[in-house]
Amino acid sequence: MKLLLIGYGNVGKAFRKLFHEKKERYPILQNVEIVGIVTRQGLMLGDKENFTVDKQVSVLDAIDYVKPDVIVDMSSPNYKDGEPSVSAYMRALSNGIHVITVNKAPLALKFREIFDVAEKVGAKIGFQGTVMSGTPSVNLFRIQPVVEVSRIRGILNGTTNYILTRLYEGLSFNEAIKEAKEKGYAEEDPTLDLNGFDAAAKLTILTNFVMNRNVKIGDFKFKGITEITSEEIRRAKSEGKKIKLIAYADNYTIQVSPQVLSPQDPLYYIDGVENALEIQNEIQRIIIRGPGAGPINAAYGALSDLVLLLEGCL
Amino acid sequence: MKLLLIGYGNVGKAFRKLFHEKKERYPILQNVEIVGIVTRQGLMLGDKENFTVDKQVSVLDAIDYVKPDVIVDMSSPNYKDGEPSVSAYMRALSNGIHVITVNKAPLALKFREIFDVAEKVGAKIGFQGTVMSGTPSVNLFRIQPVVEVSRIRGILNGTTNYILTRLYEGLSFNEAIKEAKEKGYAEEDPTLDLNGFDAAAKLTILTNFVMNRNVKIGDFKFKGITEITSEEIRRAKSEGKKIKLIAYADNYTIQVSPQVLSPQDPLYYIDGVENALEIQNEIQRIIIRGPGAGPINAAYGALSDLVLLLEGCL
Repeated sequence: MKLLLIGYGNVGKAFRKLFHEKKERYPILQNVEIVGIVTRQGLMLGDKENFTVDKQVSVLDAIDYVKPDVIVDMSSPNYKDGEPSVSAYMRALSNGIHVITVNKAPLALKFREIFDVAEKVGAKIGFQGTVMSGTPSVNLFRIQPVVEVSRIRGILNGTTNYILTRLYEGLSFNEAIKEAKEKGYAEEDPTLDLNGFDAAAKLTILTNFVMNRNVKIGDFKFKGITEITSEEIRRAKSEGKKIKLIAYADNYTIQVSPQVLSPQDPLYYIDGVENALEIQNEIQRIIIRGPGAGPINAAYGALSDLVLLLEGCL
Repeated sequence: MKLLLIGYGNVGKAFRKLFHEKKERYPILQNVEIVGIVTRQGLMLGDKENFTVDKQVSVLDAIDYVKPDVIVDMSSPNYKDGEPSVSAYMRALSNGIHVITVNKAPLALKFREIFDVAEKVGAKIGFQGTVMSGTPSVNLFRIQPVVEVSRIRGILNGTTNYILTRLYEGLSFNEAIKEAKEKGYAEEDPTLDLNGFDAAAKLTILTNFVMNRNVKIGDFKFKGITEITSEEIRRAKSEGKKIKLIAYADNYTIQVSPQVLSPQDPLYYIDGVENALEIQNEIQRIIIRGPGAGPINAAYGALSDLVLLLEGCL
């Protein structure tokens, strides 16, 4: 099985390293090869640690040229139109090439269109890494089959949860953002985390997947944490409560917004960069929590999809 | 695909009902039939709500006679020797018949022997329902492949957790047990819950499965909650802590024992009949929580195994 990696930043590098470590130990990965890596710079053929362009070609040309069995998209989200990933998925899937992605943008923008193409030809899409990175979220639904999910609710953005935790502990907004950047929990431009967009993208993906809906990011309101005042934090704290950025969807509503949570709410206890997802179906309510970001975590999300694909379980 | 149900108590009845509800809605179950139900009374052929014995035969004879594709074991655990289930699994598996079970005893007593037979012929064993019923525990490891689990830790018995919660709230031990029985959270004879045996059986199953060990219940020490004094509860509470019955295994240790937990521990917040499982691997620590018992929950555990089996993902 031949893999073409798209993107070679921190996650791509972590994936390549993890893949080789695991390939040595686990027979299921034995016949899998990384046959190329393509970025905006061009295509490298083969699998070497230092990326040097062999061909100055686009992602689409690289797919046609390499003819992989799977493309693994580790590139950064482009929320304007999802390109070049959306076109790459369409090209790949329509040729029976499977897609594994940690890039949220294509599925947050064109979930149904992409899945329609995949289903027509029986190609598979693994996207565990788009939500909560390596902590089972997307794939958790695969082992809870034949139930109707009536509600999902979660803390899906680690950056904002970290900042809210530090605000609660007495830091100012600017201090908290500065610290989050220093610790690598926030990007240089954290706008899409702070304004709720990132959480909304993840919620869009989960809702489409488990509630069989056709939602696009932009279809619903999302609100981030930038308008939360220190007075609001103080008031919540004095009442024994916390403000958390909650992603919520049921059969009628879908939204991301700050909520005041009491200690009776299991999500009250999710602090720092940790993420959590609550799932209510007609049988039970379960909650999973774990890290929601990090190159190694996202890489493992993609690698677990790869193994499930090899097992025929995507 | 033909199912033979073993046992027809609360879980068996819940499974049969749930199976029929879901079969109407989900095409994957369309070609699955319950072809018989066998209990200590004998075998009923076919699939009717009221169980009437057609043949006074043993479970083994029933397997030979019915020749099912899958046996679904819903019978009560017999921790003396695991019979008649152990022999039934051996007979079934060696003939390529898959096993789905919610009965903990056979796997807590003879995990490796049973899996050896299954692996020799490529028959599958689904056992999600043996630990935390329908809340993903066993199956959670199926979507986290190719990692080394270094530690598992959990609250795996709802009866004792309920009683501990009520002790913490001021009830006496006898009051708490009485209430747990009234609410259906404790059996008439709750000995195997109270003395830690049930949690130890579940821990045995998980440890064998995810740490590739060969542990039998009885190989390690387990301690229940019967020796906890009201003074110990009071002291923990006055220090802002709680006593919980913790199942723990790493590469060196395996044990069940009451532990004093501080609020920094995520398991501190698991109250009442809820269960929780913490999994540490080299990538991440995740925690899942949800109901750990109930006929409908156990039935769903078995049904989710059935669907995974049909998908080729057990």
